[in-house]
Amino acid sequence: MKRIVLIRHGESQWNKENRFTGWTNVDLSEKGVQEAFEAGKTLKAAGFTFEIAYTSYLKRAVKTLNNVLDAMDLDWIPVKKSWRLNEKHYGMLQGLNKAETAQKYGDEQVKIWRRSFDVAPGNLPEDDPNSATRDPRYALVPDQYIPRTEALKQCIERVMPYWECEIFPSLKEHDNIVVVAHGNSLRGVVKHLKGISDADIVGLNIPTATPYVFEFDDDLNMVRDYYLADPEELRRKQEAVANQGKAK
Amino acid sequence: MKRIVLIRHGESQWNKENRFTGWTNVDLSEKGVQEAFEAGKTLKAAGFTFEIAYTSYLKRAVKTLNNVLDAMDLDWIPVKKSWRLNEKHYGMLQGLNKAETAQKYGDEQVKIWRRSFDVAPGNLPEDDPNSATRDPRYALVPDQYIPRTEALKQCIERVMPYWECEIFPSLKEHDNIVVVAHGNSLRGVVKHLKGISDADIVGLNIPTATPYVFEFDDDLNMVRDYYLADPEELRRKQEAVANQGKAK
Repeated sequence: MKRIVLIRHGESQWNKENRFTGWTNVDLSEKGVQEAFEAGKTLKAAGFTFEIAYTSYLKRAVKTLNNVLDAMDLDWIPVKKSWRLNEKHYGMLQGLNKAETAQKYGDEQVKIWRRSFDVAPGNLPEDDPNSATRDPRYALVPDQYIPRTEALKQCIERVMPYWECEIFPSLKEHDNIVVVAHGNSLRGVVKHLKGISDADIVGLNIPTATPYVFEFDDDLNMVRDYYLADPEELRRKQEAVANQGKAK
Repeated sequence: MKRIVLIRHGESQWNKENRFTGWTNVDLSEKGVQEAFEAGKTLKAAGFTFEIAYTSYLKRAVKTLNNVLDAMDLDWIPVKKSWRLNEKHYGMLQGLNKAETAQKYGDEQVKIWRRSFDVAPGNLPEDDPNSATRDPRYALVPDQYIPRTEALKQCIERVMPYWECEIFPSLKEHDNIVVVAHGNSLRGVVKHLKGISDADIVGLNIPTATPYVFEFDDDLNMVRDYYLADPEELRRKQEAVANQGKAK
């Protein structure tokens, strides 16, 4: 039996402040660090181990992974990082408070920007200090690959080549893989694995720092998937994510 | 101009308790985490950046690196880990208090074990719970490569192939490399780079969490080396390391 465990990063500073983050490189909050460490302890207690780990170029994901591996005494395993696992780029919304944006544009428009499959917000201006085109970490990425904004559709389109070429094939070599990424990049992976429609993927809420386990047989067919979490705690976390975009 | 920066890990729990650590996988102390973060801030303030990082399989080195990269906003760069960068294996001394060992065997014998070039302590018993032969992280290392004890000579002999095959040649591709490892594995690298004799290497004390910068020209000839630190702070740290093995 082979396993891929998906983990969304723990609470970030901007989750806490309810701001659109996207590719902005904000840090974990204290609670986020703790959540990540707890996820690692839960995995260890359940007998999980990993031979390789994947994460994005964004600090909140890398640090979540570092804390998960620390808690599992797996600091030593190889870690591969890719910009393709980054969060959906939120374009001109990056940095704005979600509740304020909802008040200004209405809950419905914000829900469309956050959760429609193919409607992207306007571009982040090229001269924004957080523009990825000015950031040395993307210096080796072809310019036409660097997003200025994304709908979920475009986010998934740039995640999947990395899934297809790197992560999934490494199941042939490794029995246990962990991927720490973001709400929307992981939505893409789950959509693919479970065959979820474009319409339904909008309603899928992945809770923070909660191991989402996918099991595969030796021919790499998916056998089952489940969250490694207390059901009540899981429900609470999923509701918290679903409510984030509403005006308060 | 190309640079390799060597960093010894920050204070560990057992440095604090003055115990022989070697391959035992002890964590950083709070002070060690802070030291590592400060080293990263110092590097960033001095305008350093890195394109790739190397570290050992031991938590205290990996975590030091994670904190250095966190402070420099370089979480996203590739990190390669190897057991060959691990600390000198201290054999039967692993876990013993240094001051007690000095009282029992005498300052001189302990100094020989700690600092002679080619005298190793007796083997760590195979059934010791911390024996590397029982640890899954070394499962892919050929058994005859796994040390049961080491003198500095043997430690250097297993570090150098990794230096020769991986770290040094990557200077052709990358201009700025950071290596976070251990007092004795780094001694091997410094011995090689500076042509220090077997006799003199014993007296070389590398302070914890202090960036040790080596500059190379485009033909990869070493041009100069220096610590990135306040001279007074550097002297204090070097003395602290030199005094560790004495009876108290």
